[in-house]
Amino acid sequence: MSPGEPPRIGDLGENRLVARFRELASAEAGRGVLIGPGDDTAVVRIESNRLLLLTCDMMVEEVHFWRQWARPEQIGAKAMTQNLSDVAAMGGEPGFAVASIAAPGELPAQMVEGIAQGLISTASRYGAAVVGGDLVGSPGPMVIDVALVGWVEEDLLLLRRGARAGDVIAVTGSLGASAAGLVALRQGFGDQRWPELAQVLQAHHEPRPRLAEGRAIAATRQATAMMDLSDGLADDLPRLCAESGVGARIYADRLPVDPACAAVAARVGADPFTLATSGGEDYELLFTCARGAVGEIAAAVSRSTGTAVTAIGEVVSAEEGIALVSTGGERRALGTGFDHFGAQRS
Amino acid sequence: MSPGEPPRIGDLGENRLVARFRELASAEAGRGVLIGPGDDTAVVRIESNRLLLLTCDMMVEEVHFWRQWARPEQIGAKAMTQNLSDVAAMGGEPGFAVASIAAPGELPAQMVEGIAQGLISTASRYGAAVVGGDLVGSPGPMVIDVALVGWVEEDLLLLRRGARAGDVIAVTGSLGASAAGLVALRQGFGDQRWPELAQVLQAHHEPRPRLAEGRAIAATRQATAMMDLSDGLADDLPRLCAESGVGARIYADRLPVDPACAAVAARVGADPFTLATSGGEDYELLFTCARGAVGEIAAAVSRSTGTAVTAIGEVVSAEEGIALVSTGGERRALGTGFDHFGAQRS
Repeated sequence: MSPGEPPRIGDLGENRLVARFRELASAEAGRGVLIGPGDDTAVVRIESNRLLLLTCDMMVEEVHFWRQWARPEQIGAKAMTQNLSDVAAMGGEPGFAVASIAAPGELPAQMVEGIAQGLISTASRYGAAVVGGDLVGSPGPMVIDVALVGWVEEDLLLLRRGARAGDVIAVTGSLGASAAGLVALRQGFGDQRWPELAQVLQAHHEPRPRLAEGRAIAATRQATAMMDLSDGLADDLPRLCAESGVGARIYADRLPVDPACAAVAARVGADPFTLATSGGEDYELLFTCARGAVGEIAAAVSRSTGTAVTAIGEVVSAEEGIALVSTGGERRALGTGFDHFGAQRS
Repeated sequence: MSPGEPPRIGDLGENRLVARFRELASAEAGRGVLIGPGDDTAVVRIESNRLLLLTCDMMVEEVHFWRQWARPEQIGAKAMTQNLSDVAAMGGEPGFAVASIAAPGELPAQMVEGIAQGLISTASRYGAAVVGGDLVGSPGPMVIDVALVGWVEEDLLLLRRGARAGDVIAVTGSLGASAAGLVALRQGFGDQRWPELAQVLQAHHEPRPRLAEGRAIAATRQATAMMDLSDGLADDLPRLCAESGVGARIYADRLPVDPACAAVAARVGADPFTLATSGGEDYELLFTCARGAVGEIAAAVSRSTGTAVTAIGEVVSAEEGIALVSTGGERRALGTGFDHFGAQRS
C-alpha cells in the first residue's frame, strides 16, 4: 500500500475488515444479539411463539447496481431493503441479517465500508441488526448477498396464496418512480437538478421497505394474500395469481402512477404506464381482500403510516387470465405496456 | 434455444428455475417447514428454548472452486458444508438454509441444477432443509452464497472465547488432506488413479462437517472454546486466541497429519506439515479444555462418531504469542511451514 493512497481491500486483509465490520455493526446491534460478527456464527435469542421467516436476495454490479450512479451507502441500503421488503410482504417484522460481499482486491476499502454502513444503518432503522457476514475476493463484478431472518405471529402471516375470485386487488403508495429514476440515469439526466428528477432518483436509490404498512395490513386480519412489488406488477402479479390459482383484472386508470414518474417520463420520452407496470423496484405491497374490507385496510394503513392504499383491480377466475383493462374497456396482457397499447389502438 | 442443445439458464427464466428448485427442495423438506421456496420468504417453526445461530459463506468460481475439477453436486455440497461446519463449531444443530447463486445466462441449466442438488442433499444428510434462494444473472464468475440458521441449547453453546492458559488444544480427525487434494489438482495429477490420491481428492471435493462431533464435544460440557478449521490452523488458531485473549503452543510432532496427505505430498513434492497447518478446508473442529478433560471428551467423540481427537498443544498467556514447537524444541511462528523451518534450521 503506497503512502497517501486510500487502502484497498487486498491491503487490509480479512481479519482487519472483520474487525472494522464488527465495530460498525456492534454500535447498532440491538436486543437479542448475544454474539455478533467474529465467531463461527452469530447467536441470537429466539422470539418465542412466532414463526421464523428466512429470505435472501443477491445483487450484482452492472446488473442490479452501478458504481458510477449510486453511493456505496445507497447500494448497501438497497441490498438490505430488498430483504426487509420480503419480510414486510409476509406481515412480519425483521430480526437479524447476514451479508456476503464478493469484490476484487483492488477495490477501495472505503467502498466496502460504505456498503456495510448502508446495510447496517438500514437494518437498524427498521429494528433489525446485521450480525455477521463474509467478504471474499473475486476477479468479477461486486456481488452482494443479504440473508434476513424475521418473525411473524402465525395468525398474521400473509402468503401469496389465499386470493379468491371477487377479491379486490390493492397496492400501497405509488408505482413507477424507481423505474423512472433508472431510465433518467441511463439517458444521462443524472446530473441535472429539478424537483421531480430528484424524487425519482431518490426512489430509485433509496427505496423504503413497507414494513409498518405490512404490519398494519396484517393486523386488520382482512387481507387474503400479499407480496411485494420488486420486479414490477407485470412480473409479480402473475406469481401471486399462480400461487392462489386465480386470474386478475387490473384497471389502467386506477393505477397510482407516481406523479414524479409521470413528469420525468414526459421529459425523457418514456411511457409512465409502462414504468408503473413493468419497471420494478418500487417495493410497494400488493395485496388482496374482500371487496368490503378494502376501506378498513386503507384506513388502518393511512392511520398508522400515512401511506395511501389504492384498489387497482379485482381477482377473477384462473380461466380469465391476467389482463389490463383500458379506460375504453379494451383488454391487453399486463406488461405489454401502454406505449404498445396506444400504438395498437390508433 | 436450439433443438437438441441443453437448456441454458437464460433460456429457462427465473420462474421455471424457481419451480424446478422447489421440486428438488420439497422432496427433502423436513419438519417445521411451513413455506419453502416460492413465496417472499420461507416460513419455519421456531424450536423454542434454544438460541438461534446464523451464518453465511460465499464461494467464487476460480477462487474457491473450479468447474473443470469438481462436479456441480460437489460444488453445492461444499458450499453447504462450510456453513454446516460453522454451526458444528458452536455445538449446534443446523435447521434451515437459503442459497443465492449468481451465474452467466449462457451457463447450462444442468450445472445450476447440480449445484442445487448438492446443496439440498447435503443439508438433508445433516438434518437441515434448503427453504429458499435467489438466482441472478451475472457477467462474471459464478458466485454461490449460503446462509444457514441453526439452533443450540444455551448451556451447550461454545464460542471462540473461553480458552484459558493451561488448557489443552485439541483437534478432531486429521489435517492436510484437503490441501493435498488441491495441490494434486493444480499440478495436474487429478486424472491419475492411486488410493491416497483418491482419498485426498475426496477430502477436497467432499469435506464433511463435524456436526455429530461438535454435539458430542458440547455435550460433555468440558470444552472451553471451539471453532472450525476452514482457513487452516495457522490462520484460524490466532482468531481463537485473539477472542480468548491467550497465546498458544502447538507441538509439531503431535499434529495429526493425514496419512494420505503425507503420501501425496511426497509424490507431488509438497511439505505435509505446511499442508496440515496452512492448507485449510479440512473442516475439522479445534477446541480447548482443561488438561484433565481431554480424555473424557476424546472418549465421548470416539464413542458416538468413531472420530479421533488429538491433543496438539496448550494454551499459554497472550504475551507468549502463538508458536509451533519442533521435535527439537525450536519455536517458529505458526504458518511459516516446515519446509521453511527445515531450511532455516540447517
